[in-house]
Amino acid sequence: MSDEREKLEIEAAKLVTALENEDFEGFRYMFLEQHPYDQAKIFVKLEQEERTKLYHYLSPEEMAALFENIEDEEYNYEMYLSEMDPRFASQMLEHMYADDAVDVLNELNKDQVASYLTIMDDEAAQEIRELLHYEEFTAGSIMTTEFIAIIANQTVKSAMHILKHEAPDAETIYYLYVIDEDKHLVGVISLRDLIVSDDDLMIGEIMSERVFSVSVGEDQEDVARKMRDYNFLALPVVDFQNHLLGIITVDDIVDVIDEEASDDYSKLAAVSDVDSIDRGPLSAAKKRLPWLVILLFLGMLTANLIGQFEETLDKVAILAVFIPLIAGMAGNTGTQALAVAVRRIAMGDLEEGGNLKIIAREAGTGIINGAVCGFLVIGVVYFWKHDFFLGLLVGISILATLTVATIAGAFVPLVMHRLKVDPAVASGPFITTINDIISILIYFGMATLFMQYLI
Amino acid sequence: MSDEREKLEIEAAKLVTALENEDFEGFRYMFLEQHPYDQAKIFVKLEQEERTKLYHYLSPEEMAALFENIEDEEYNYEMYLSEMDPRFASQMLEHMYADDAVDVLNELNKDQVASYLTIMDDEAAQEIRELLHYEEFTAGSIMTTEFIAIIANQTVKSAMHILKHEAPDAETIYYLYVIDEDKHLVGVISLRDLIVSDDDLMIGEIMSERVFSVSVGEDQEDVARKMRDYNFLALPVVDFQNHLLGIITVDDIVDVIDEEASDDYSKLAAVSDVDSIDRGPLSAAKKRLPWLVILLFLGMLTANLIGQFEETLDKVAILAVFIPLIAGMAGNTGTQALAVAVRRIAMGDLEEGGNLKIIAREAGTGIINGAVCGFLVIGVVYFWKHDFFLGLLVGISILATLTVATIAGAFVPLVMHRLKVDPAVASGPFITTINDIISILIYFGMATLFMQYLI
Repeated sequence: MSDEREKLEIEAAKLVTALENEDFEGFRYMFLEQHPYDQAKIFVKLEQEERTKLYHYLSPEEMAALFENIEDEEYNYEMYLSEMDPRFASQMLEHMYADDAVDVLNELNKDQVASYLTIMDDEAAQEIRELLHYEEFTAGSIMTTEFIAIIANQTVKSAMHILKHEAPDAETIYYLYVIDEDKHLVGVISLRDLIVSDDDLMIGEIMSERVFSVSVGEDQEDVARKMRDYNFLALPVVDFQNHLLGIITVDDIVDVIDEEASDDYSKLAAVSDVDSIDRGPLSAAKKRLPWLVILLFLGMLTANLIGQFEETLDKVAILAVFIPLIAGMAGNTGTQALAVAVRRIAMGDLEEGGNLKIIAREAGTGIINGAVCGFLVIGVVYFWKHDFFLGLLVGISILATLTVATIAGAFVPLVMHRLKVDPAVASGPFITTINDIISILIYFGMATLFMQYLI
Repeated sequence: MSDEREKLEIEAAKLVTALENEDFEGFRYMFLEQHPYDQAKIFVKLEQEERTKLYHYLSPEEMAALFENIEDEEYNYEMYLSEMDPRFASQMLEHMYADDAVDVLNELNKDQVASYLTIMDDEAAQEIRELLHYEEFTAGSIMTTEFIAIIANQTVKSAMHILKHEAPDAETIYYLYVIDEDKHLVGVISLRDLIVSDDDLMIGEIMSERVFSVSVGEDQEDVARKMRDYNFLALPVVDFQNHLLGIITVDDIVDVIDEEASDDYSKLAAVSDVDSIDRGPLSAAKKRLPWLVILLFLGMLTANLIGQFEETLDKVAILAVFIPLIAGMAGNTGTQALAVAVRRIAMGDLEEGGNLKIIAREAGTGIINGAVCGFLVIGVVYFWKHDFFLGLLVGISILATLTVATIAGAFVPLVMHRLKVDPAVASGPFITTINDIISILIYFGMATLFMQYLI
């Protein structure tokens, strides 16, 4: 990778020089050679003065291709747009794929959006306005309206003709969607099938009437799952009356899968977003501190709880030695159970009436793991401290703790899912702290109960 | 989702009835209506007797489409193949996309592979044999050889003619790769560009000579990243002399992204594989127990360490109260830093000479978080226990612990990455246990040092 990064840096340096020398021809030649993704990578590293020159060197259309590929997590869209001439900016938005333009406009305030839409071509403005309505994380929010729709009552030849005409604007040309006069989705034909078919065949004869579609309000994660399972390159989006509204292409789905996975990952580790760039310690601290403070107060509860057993501790100080071990094991097994449950829920892999079954399985898993770890502990403590009763106490605590903690690890996300809360917010550290409390109750409870054997 | 699942179950029940009644026509009609992904889902739920009938009802080609879609994580490929007539089985493998056939054959032993390849058509066997050589997780292991390659010195019309001819067998027809007489990759043209171009233009004139390709030994994660960033539907795979060997299609990349993400997730939670199905408590315990036992012995180290401070504890039992709080906070901040570092590494987002920068940033983050949490703790302990020195001890321990633990959380994966070990194996629970030890050393070390103020 570093080889490629170096190459890109050399190109970037050359381009900056061309901008500084106002070498219009040279700049355009080198810049347009780059893939738009690389253009965007170079663009976001430019100084404002250089950017301003660049806006004059590129057409709105060329700028649109670049803008679609900006992955700046700081979302400087507003700044970039304000640097452009408003007419240039709205022409650029017009040339962008509608779903990408909507992503940009979503970062602006209402007045700004309205003013750009006003200057824009009416048709483009209308398309964007409709897409702006859809809620985040739904199929509607990631779909685009640049698809190719044809009617069934025409030949392959005429469909190919339409295709050639619309190809430059469509986001994908690899599926053609067949609609009736009321714009209901009635069929689909892949470009592959179209190409191998005889010119004189009718679309109605060769199209597939079994169209997979998703509804406009469907969760983007469900859409991603379908696309992955069925290996589609695009999926049509319909409303409740089966009117074709747009399509979702596989490149957007790749981003969704990536985002959702790293979202689950961030939450398991109790960070707001592992994938956004930390510019410095302050921005990193800002993302992690809220979690830490919550966990600190939960930890205080634990401390308070142990405080209740101060008398026991005063008598048998050795008990303290095993606190981190028992609490730690409870945390570990809880995190494991949590992760399995969260992924199962995310993958939509919950069996029918499965919650009880999952809890039962986790209880079984906890007992097995608890028994194995418990026996190991009894042995180790016996050889180390030559105290059978202490070993027994710690071992039985581990057995009981691991069983309860494993159940808790699965139970919490399942309940959250039932309550329609994203189960992933039950992070690892959160469940670990809950399980700290459970484990200390069990351990000190038993110690206090069987005190006479320990002194 | 449950609606669709119900529908599928009804279909499955009908199909089983058709199999039982030996209703050949009815079965084929209903079964072939299904998407191969659904066919596979139904297939894996059948009993052996039903499967045996099914093999006789489908052609090797139809069976191949189904087999490509089996996602059974138990990998029963060997069982299914052994149930089939060997000739039928190898014909089926022949009809599968080479990369999928290789996935299946990788689950068999060498003798079985050799015997299927012997019955197979020579050309197909040769292709599969070559693919079997590539190491797991490289571009070679996920590429397929069913691509369309053309020469530059021909017209658009003649290229379209080749395309029509080869379309039924190619895994994707949406890119045509241009090669010279020595099979070097020299250009690429998308079907979109081909379709909108004039019939009489030469391929050499309209192809793009800037071809993105990956080398056959490249890590599949790097390939996935490229595909995602540049929004390709397929990428050509070349050897060191730039000979075109195969292509990787976006559907395989979607699977890679999914796998790698859930792999990182599993490791953060210290489970071997969250996404494979747990059939019962025993199989779940088997996946989690190895981690738990390792962590148990690490926990014993912690216990032993506290044991060293037994004298201190005997004098000031109240110290024990804050052990879980301090150890827990160290674990939490370490997990956060770990997750950020692991994702950064996985995304290839490490800046040049960035390791020191990352460590410095984490140190800063740790100090900020430690200072905030430390001050909070001093306040809370003072109001709760009315003991300023105890509060100060705990507060300063939190500050020191959080700083060190945050650095450790980032340091461990960075070192592992440098040593070419997958940094994700430094799981959350592992770093938590390490940080337990660090935090106890700091806490009890300070307590022993300042003992006179505490009694």
